[in-house]
Amino acid sequence: MATSSAVEPPFRTVTVVGLGLIGGSIALAVREQWPSVTVFGADKASVLAHAQDAGAIYRGAEDFAALPPADLVVLAAPVLQNVALLRELGPGLPASTVVTDVGSTKRDIVRASHSGAISAAFIAGHPIGGAERGGFGFARPDLFRGRPWIFTPEPDSRSDAVERLVGFARQLGARPAIVDAERHDRLMAFLSHLPQLTASALMAVIGGAVDSEGLKLAGRGLVDTTRLAASPVDTWREICAANADGIGAALDELIAALARLRSGLEGGEAVEQTFDHAARWRAELMRGRDSG
Amino acid sequence: MATSSAVEPPFRTVTVVGLGLIGGSIALAVREQWPSVTVFGADKASVLAHAQDAGAIYRGAEDFAALPPADLVVLAAPVLQNVALLRELGPGLPASTVVTDVGSTKRDIVRASHSGAISAAFIAGHPIGGAERGGFGFARPDLFRGRPWIFTPEPDSRSDAVERLVGFARQLGARPAIVDAERHDRLMAFLSHLPQLTASALMAVIGGAVDSEGLKLAGRGLVDTTRLAASPVDTWREICAANADGIGAALDELIAALARLRSGLEGGEAVEQTFDHAARWRAELMRGRDSG
Repeated sequence: MATSSAVEPPFRTVTVVGLGLIGGSIALAVREQWPSVTVFGADKASVLAHAQDAGAIYRGAEDFAALPPADLVVLAAPVLQNVALLRELGPGLPASTVVTDVGSTKRDIVRASHSGAISAAFIAGHPIGGAERGGFGFARPDLFRGRPWIFTPEPDSRSDAVERLVGFARQLGARPAIVDAERHDRLMAFLSHLPQLTASALMAVIGGAVDSEGLKLAGRGLVDTTRLAASPVDTWREICAANADGIGAALDELIAALARLRSGLEGGEAVEQTFDHAARWRAELMRGRDSG
Repeated sequence: MATSSAVEPPFRTVTVVGLGLIGGSIALAVREQWPSVTVFGADKASVLAHAQDAGAIYRGAEDFAALPPADLVVLAAPVLQNVALLRELGPGLPASTVVTDVGSTKRDIVRASHSGAISAAFIAGHPIGGAERGGFGFARPDLFRGRPWIFTPEPDSRSDAVERLVGFARQLGARPAIVDAERHDRLMAFLSHLPQLTASALMAVIGGAVDSEGLKLAGRGLVDTTRLAASPVDTWREICAANADGIGAALDELIAALARLRSGLEGGEAVEQTFDHAARWRAELMRGRDSG
């Protein structure tokens, strides 16, 4: 961790709704960073049992309403469920409770927050944690270390809530960033959603074309390029729907770039330019990162 | 190495033409597996100096003709140069010399081999070595370990030459496979060339859309999916030209798959089907591999 556990925790009690990869990792990270903080969890009974065995939560319930009030509520279910949860739970929470979510799209839940009594204490969030495999079984306390954790506050958001969440993310090892919700969704369409859909489409097309025997002749390039192809559709169905306009625009740009390459395979500028731009942006992407 | 150095080397002298990643790694692997084998190299003087310092070659020359005859000649220059080299050098080689190449496309060089006196002793080859960074600086003796090494003999190929090359590849740790040249090029269009062009197009499009500031918010998914985007255009310009028909067909399939996703973002079958097929083929791809 970037800071010692002597730092005062920004929240004394934390309830995580949805103990999948991200929610489970938040629970584990909080327990590791601040052993004195009480973590509650809401999920199916089998997941709660797993999380409790792993020491991620102090107590769990299938029904959020059965849990005691908490200083921080983290909505970590799939994107559209988080929106529904916010609408349902938000109005009943104490005014002192800060609420955030971890969804990969932000406009939808920010819009929802404006329609209820919750808006001031809700600060939408998105920890960039890499999620090719879902479920508590893949959760780990260091998932956020060195990774961006975006918050998308609105003009009327409570600044103390933003500050506490930024401190929370930083002390869990992440690099907090404040980004407008519109810009977040457009950026993620390119940075996250487009690579995911591309990796899935690529793997589906290639497997269909070469079959099991052919796949035995694949090198490491294909293995890396399609790592995301194992991602669960349950997560991505909702992201695709929630950010359809942004993803559609990103797909259009990629399709156009592939069509340019296709028409320039035997000469011309497309191959040169694409590789040139790609190598330069790749170097930029890797600046200051390790290659893992 | 899979076998001990007590195994009789299939070739006593080996000349590698082009000491880049693949040629350099072959030279290093031969030296490690059979210290008694003499390795000659042909390349630019600066590369030869580097290779000699690293112990990869016994002696080098910029001009192939200045080197002594060898039992095996490995053409490891870019694809189209290998074809030119085979045309130029082939007819002057002793009948006992076996010739192979390491190019990523095979129909072109197999065709060229039929037009000269060399055809019987030339067996086209393709070690699948992962080549996102070119040059001798990235060469390593274990590059081929556990990886496929494809040979594409023709009906009139000398079977003793095929056997010796298969033994050579196996003893360098690779998994040799015999595939028809037509089928090789079609398979590689999907398994290798399509992922490369996709990774490059993806990185070029994303960098252009989000700029340096945006790239700081990228997660590991983008980093993995675009690892190939650092690949050198000098290698790929020639592969694109040599396998344009196969790559074009593969690009068409991917573009169609992306267009289907694009029209089904807000519902329908495309997202479900793509993720379902992708996850199943991904599992198939990873069967029996480590994830590295």
